[in-house]
Amino acid sequence: MSDAKLQSVLSSLSQVARQLDALPSDRPAPGSSWVKLNTNENPFPLPAIIMQSAIAALERQYLYPEDDNISLREAAANAYSVSMDQVIAGNGSSELLGLVYRAFLAPGDSVAMMSPGFSFNRKLATLQGAQFVEIKFSEDHSLPMEQLLFGPAKDAKFILLANPNNPTGTFVPVADIERLVAKSDRLIVLDEAYVDFAPENGLRLINRYSNLLVLRTFSKSYAAAGVRVGFGFGHPEIIGRLRNIQNVFNMNVIGQAVGISVLAHRAAYADNHRHIRHERRRVTLALSQLGFSVIPSHANFLLARVPTGQDGLWWQSAFARQKILVAVFPDKGLENYIRVSIGTKEQMDAFLRAASRISRILNMSRPPY
Amino acid sequence: MSDAKLQSVLSSLSQVARQLDALPSDRPAPGSSWVKLNTNENPFPLPAIIMQSAIAALERQYLYPEDDNISLREAAANAYSVSMDQVIAGNGSSELLGLVYRAFLAPGDSVAMMSPGFSFNRKLATLQGAQFVEIKFSEDHSLPMEQLLFGPAKDAKFILLANPNNPTGTFVPVADIERLVAKSDRLIVLDEAYVDFAPENGLRLINRYSNLLVLRTFSKSYAAAGVRVGFGFGHPEIIGRLRNIQNVFNMNVIGQAVGISVLAHRAAYADNHRHIRHERRRVTLALSQLGFSVIPSHANFLLARVPTGQDGLWWQSAFARQKILVAVFPDKGLENYIRVSIGTKEQMDAFLRAASRISRILNMSRPPY
Repeated sequence: MSDAKLQSVLSSLSQVARQLDALPSDRPAPGSSWVKLNTNENPFPLPAIIMQSAIAALERQYLYPEDDNISLREAAANAYSVSMDQVIAGNGSSELLGLVYRAFLAPGDSVAMMSPGFSFNRKLATLQGAQFVEIKFSEDHSLPMEQLLFGPAKDAKFILLANPNNPTGTFVPVADIERLVAKSDRLIVLDEAYVDFAPENGLRLINRYSNLLVLRTFSKSYAAAGVRVGFGFGHPEIIGRLRNIQNVFNMNVIGQAVGISVLAHRAAYADNHRHIRHERRRVTLALSQLGFSVIPSHANFLLARVPTGQDGLWWQSAFARQKILVAVFPDKGLENYIRVSIGTKEQMDAFLRAASRISRILNMSRPPY
Repeated sequence: MSDAKLQSVLSSLSQVARQLDALPSDRPAPGSSWVKLNTNENPFPLPAIIMQSAIAALERQYLYPEDDNISLREAAANAYSVSMDQVIAGNGSSELLGLVYRAFLAPGDSVAMMSPGFSFNRKLATLQGAQFVEIKFSEDHSLPMEQLLFGPAKDAKFILLANPNNPTGTFVPVADIERLVAKSDRLIVLDEAYVDFAPENGLRLINRYSNLLVLRTFSKSYAAAGVRVGFGFGHPEIIGRLRNIQNVFNMNVIGQAVGISVLAHRAAYADNHRHIRHERRRVTLALSQLGFSVIPSHANFLLARVPTGQDGLWWQSAFARQKILVAVFPDKGLENYIRVSIGTKEQMDAFLRAASRISRILNMSRPPY
């Protein structure tokens, strides 16, 4: 094989793509026997009626999916009381996030994200050759309004804000978000991935402000991370442009059908959401009794400061030895935290048993003074 | 709503995105009672064993799909006798095409496509702000080698070539493609969407040339357009970079499972492919008897010059009045052609009955000299 040829092709890559290395091939898949509490999935089956819609869709597998997700967007418009031209449907909200980056960022531009936040965004900014600006939440987890309006975020092409926030689980009152959206002329991208576990949501604001884009996903509250269903809601002029640059046939027929069916049967998830809230309280309390300090959560996960003496990474390994996966974060200030998803009762029992066992061993090995 | 705010957000769009208008919301979905022969689908159900894999995958719907499509890429590597780092898996080959455009094209760059070709590519070039250069096939449907090597394509970041070609259905011997790949230092993107209906394929060439990327899809020969499964094959250094800029969780769990299962049961499609070839012959002959001039096809569709007197658009409307959808193309030189997909025997009977009825009416209305 001619190496000169390879060099010629690599030199044809655009500047940004050239800077990113090739991925190695051998990244291992995680074992399926583990208790997976690291990516905030909601481990419950599809309600039977939704499963039936998915199977029926599989029988139309030979037809291209409906162009522009018309029926799904129509169903979402009805369910959320907005108009169809205010909705874009995505192969997960991750596709829609990528689309926003591509629509708004050219090399040299900047984007601002509330920090700590969803780290995937840094990669998306890199892919556009854009500068990634992080704005820290205030100590009390509120929005630092001055910084957002007059600090480095004022030149950002858009500002990302998750509510409830990930990985903290904290929640900003919608009135505060409205104040930001009203005062800023930047596009505010409000990721409400976890909002169904929180007291209120900001969707209604899209009818009052044209600089707001609200993202939703069915990966968390509707237990469909594997199906990839997400939505963006905003001004028709913004939504219509995002749809115009979206790749054709972005969702498959099963994603479209599950999306429509979930929208028609949202009430079937009431028990699921009650369960998550109940377990969230129970695990918060139990972890506190073991010496963890848990940030009050409005999502389907907990961010917990580990007991003094060890750091988050140490606890992550200790859990891993018992085949339990929890998440840790490289962000400065989060070294002593772990994030644990709220799963089934059995999963949370296994997690708490492991936490208690690890604490016991730690206490035994501690000198008795 | 403040119009100034909307203008501020719109002015934050990158230059390319700003040039594209917002899509209107009300594009109608086509009726399901029509005989759909306009987009080259393969209207047969999933084999039962593959359907079972899909249903089993639906029971893992709450888990995120496997990162980087590892198992699917491994299955494709085994099935096609290449290594895993030579394979990227896509949400249809349309996703992979989009990825190639994003990896290689910055505003002002150019891309070349053999013409007539797949018109979707023009939109993808526009999205990158790139110039789209069309290189015409020679009269005998062969590759104009001089033009590709020394003409306007020589500065293109990559050259697109579909084999069999769409919409003509013509096929270039793989030896000719090898000659192009060997002589050119440009990346050649060889779209083999229809190759399972043709006499040979060019996949083996990726082991000899680092400037070749082969695209495949399960939308045609494996009757899974609605599931969205596609692959790219090439040099690990190119494939690894495409994977690195690919959006996370690009395929859902059902897409991954159907892909793996189809790869394991390709033999189950032998009858399907025999049927397509048989109907292709039958419809070619029948159309010829009605005065159409059919280009010999190596794909699952026919490009047919309509009988003298009316143009392709006229025939498309005439078929539409009988609820049969066929495709026409805006390309210069294709005004008098229609493209018809090869479907089930029943669909082709309906198509031929309609063609014969339309011909009869045309002949009756013609003056008797």
